[in-house]
Amino acid sequence: MDGRQGTFWGLGLGPGDPELVTLKARRLIQEADCIVVPKSSIAGESLALEIARPFVGDKPVLQFEFPMRRNERELAPYWAAAAAEIADRVGRGERVVFLTLGDCLTYSTYCYVLQELRKTLPESVIHSVPGVTSFAAAAAATSFSLGEKDERIAVVPVPRGDLGPVRRALEEYDTVVLMKVAKQLPAVVRLLQEMGLDGQAVFASHVSQDGEFITRDLASLLDNERGYLSVILVRRRGGDGR
Amino acid sequence: MDGRQGTFWGLGLGPGDPELVTLKARRLIQEADCIVVPKSSIAGESLALEIARPFVGDKPVLQFEFPMRRNERELAPYWAAAAAEIADRVGRGERVVFLTLGDCLTYSTYCYVLQELRKTLPESVIHSVPGVTSFAAAAAATSFSLGEKDERIAVVPVPRGDLGPVRRALEEYDTVVLMKVAKQLPAVVRLLQEMGLDGQAVFASHVSQDGEFITRDLASLLDNERGYLSVILVRRRGGDGR
Repeated sequence: MDGRQGTFWGLGLGPGDPELVTLKARRLIQEADCIVVPKSSIAGESLALEIARPFVGDKPVLQFEFPMRRNERELAPYWAAAAAEIADRVGRGERVVFLTLGDCLTYSTYCYVLQELRKTLPESVIHSVPGVTSFAAAAAATSFSLGEKDERIAVVPVPRGDLGPVRRALEEYDTVVLMKVAKQLPAVVRLLQEMGLDGQAVFASHVSQDGEFITRDLASLLDNERGYLSVILVRRRGGDGR
Repeated sequence: MDGRQGTFWGLGLGPGDPELVTLKARRLIQEADCIVVPKSSIAGESLALEIARPFVGDKPVLQFEFPMRRNERELAPYWAAAAAEIADRVGRGERVVFLTLGDCLTYSTYCYVLQELRKTLPESVIHSVPGVTSFAAAAAATSFSLGEKDERIAVVPVPRGDLGPVRRALEEYDTVVLMKVAKQLPAVVRLLQEMGLDGQAVFASHVSQDGEFITRDLASLLDNERGYLSVILVRRRGGDGR
């Protein structure tokens, strides 16, 4: 460690394809002393770690479990434990990287760990590297314009109960990106059908990953379980020539 | 050319730092026979080309000028000319890449060129590679959570006249990303002050580029001309611990 300054980097690794990692994230993984990854109790092996695997080599990997719960009080101790371990290592001069799927500040566990770290580490040693989001990857895979000219984009996680916020976004925004569709998939498809928007939508799950599945036939999704790690893109008004 | 299949790739190169290019975009630039870049009549030398410069080598570079106009009828011949040249080269077996700033399908000239290309080239030879957006980069540079849990994000280009759509987004969405602020910067700052949101906003221009400028002191922007290539991030409700 030779007295050098420790540093912390949160890295957005993109949607899944290791080639969609940025040059900067790859370099920082290669230069790191220690790799920290969130591990979901549902998804098993961390997908972020799989993406980074070609660059990790034989570095130590610390996996922290963040249970899939919505209650912040229950989750806070998990974030705090990860942050304490990271701060300790940075304090000893290590270069620590934290791996996240997609962009690190867009719906990521990293946001909470970052808040904890900022309580203990100086700002000057905390850095974040942006990544490609799942919805940009879904757009690229389907030639779907997310926004042109003055069009407005809404990014809306699908709530568990009432789909009112989804409906309002679809009424008011030119493009709507529906995230975290999960078990609400059939209800969302029915809403899009009712609003006459199912023909202007595309569904993509596990984009750029091995299990990538993309369809414009939303009705085919009414009976299935493809909602996990999926996004739906909807364009209210067609662009030019469509 | 040896009879091989020609291909076309639209590449999102990220916000400006050549290190924020993905491994895939870099590889495709290195493997390309020909580089196509949009050239704005205002910005002079193409910024996308500057980002890619370390990977371009001595390949031929075709620069197409797309004037900064809003009228689609005036612009259509420019898109068509670029698409015709690209289709011609792909038809002769070349690997052609089109460079864009940020993500290729988020407010990019690429969207229009893509529409033209789809009229003449088969889908199987047209591909897009997503990139890091300017707003993800602004968020990373400022530790700004774009979205957590079920929060909704609105991405809103600032219109020239009435700021009604900006106000409504700020009233309804948890995070608002204001794009294309340009000359409306003082009016937007005054609106944020009036709504009591100026303390929860961050302004970033030329993120990750040489001229990067970031401030949370929005009042300091009332008298200046920093709106070009800038974004403003606003969070209506604070996340945990802020």
